[in-house]
Amino acid sequence: MKIFIVCAHPEPKSFNHAMANLAVEVLGERGHEVRVSDLYAMGFNPVGGRWEFKTLPDLDYFEYMSAQGFAARRGEITADVAAEHEKLLWCDLLILQFPMWWFGMPAILKGWVDRVMSNGTAYSGEMSYETGGFRGRRASVSMTTSVASGYYEVGGRGGYMAHLLWPINNGTLRYCGFDVLPFFVADGIGDVDEETHRRYLEDYRAHLIGLETAEPFFFHMAEDYDDELRLKPGVTAQTEMQNPELLLKKASGA
Amino acid sequence: MKIFIVCAHPEPKSFNHAMANLAVEVLGERGHEVRVSDLYAMGFNPVGGRWEFKTLPDLDYFEYMSAQGFAARRGEITADVAAEHEKLLWCDLLILQFPMWWFGMPAILKGWVDRVMSNGTAYSGEMSYETGGFRGRRASVSMTTSVASGYYEVGGRGGYMAHLLWPINNGTLRYCGFDVLPFFVADGIGDVDEETHRRYLEDYRAHLIGLETAEPFFFHMAEDYDDELRLKPGVTAQTEMQNPELLLKKASGA
Repeated sequence: MKIFIVCAHPEPKSFNHAMANLAVEVLGERGHEVRVSDLYAMGFNPVGGRWEFKTLPDLDYFEYMSAQGFAARRGEITADVAAEHEKLLWCDLLILQFPMWWFGMPAILKGWVDRVMSNGTAYSGEMSYETGGFRGRRASVSMTTSVASGYYEVGGRGGYMAHLLWPINNGTLRYCGFDVLPFFVADGIGDVDEETHRRYLEDYRAHLIGLETAEPFFFHMAEDYDDELRLKPGVTAQTEMQNPELLLKKASGA
Repeated sequence: MKIFIVCAHPEPKSFNHAMANLAVEVLGERGHEVRVSDLYAMGFNPVGGRWEFKTLPDLDYFEYMSAQGFAARRGEITADVAAEHEKLLWCDLLILQFPMWWFGMPAILKGWVDRVMSNGTAYSGEMSYETGGFRGRRASVSMTTSVASGYYEVGGRGGYMAHLLWPINNGTLRYCGFDVLPFFVADGIGDVDEETHRRYLEDYRAHLIGLETAEPFFFHMAEDYDDELRLKPGVTAQTEMQNPELLLKKASGA
């Protein structure tokens, strides 16, 4: 396999970097090729905007998706984004490695998504979800949090982790065509002891090896939706996010 | 009232700016004071990191929350963040105005949150949720999306809008002490006609006036949670996010 890791943490000695380094080591040992984009080290600019484009479809009104699609058609995608596209189109598996900040990605990674998951390459009017630009590839989230795991249950104060990751898993990765694999979360990373750090890394090693054969999450396909993009009346929702009864089972421990 | 609008869109002629401009006009007419941070116009740097800090609690290991807390205690918060703190501490009502990009905030606004909602000012070990740094203030999300509203229902392909906004409403605004008011969403903004734009702005005008007296969303208080931050066994979850039965009712239109 060819594996592309995008890492977004400002401290090279961080646990996030330890996870990324472990992935390079473990996956390399198993004969996979691995490339890494370390966004802080690269000084990646996350602010999507007019500065990225030589020309625009409408010079008087900047509309980001149109500008991206226009640049893609003209082969004028800015160099830093084109380099990320090359890695995405090269890889079989994408790993997003980041600390959960404010229940989502740090801005540098959110802006990598805004800029790199671009119209004309990652998706278009004709390419989304199962027909997205990166279809046939797999992706997985690897994350640290700063709170213990009870916080991220259905009745937790932070909210259910799979809800918190749905915008990334369904709305971003799946939207761009990836098959989405199980995520790995190391909770309360600033508060746990060295022994727990070691255990997390052991668990992560097993998780990484498991990604070779992991089953992707189920998502409904276009045919299950009506013209307004709601599940058709005859279709029973099979994701926890779209079916509160599945959540109820989860909440009751069934 | 004193109202602080944070607007995050790269095009000054955008519908997001039209909404922000309307808010300035309507709220001004009603005798309120309004200030605006237009993040693209300000060139706000959203990348939280070491560059923000003159000194660090540990020069060998950059940990963002500790660095923020240390700077706050020493009165050494970087000028652009301190300016935003001043506006947040001045205001009675915060409005976040942005286009939903990838089911969340554009990176420039996500990074405004990462940097400005900082440890020592917005929250701390002793200040969070109902005791958060901005307690006593109110906040509301104003947003555009690029898809029609069916997409954002419980059985919609994008996922239920209140789920998508929970990381902002509960995880960010409430965490920092705000009372969170109803949100306003203008869906499918690139696809709808001029007449719909006009209707959205009329609806938004009524929404803005309604914010003067709107009831905040309910959130459970600290006393409802156990030591692991799960709702206590005797407490019935009263938010849709934490109680799938409420979602089931919503999904069935009850």
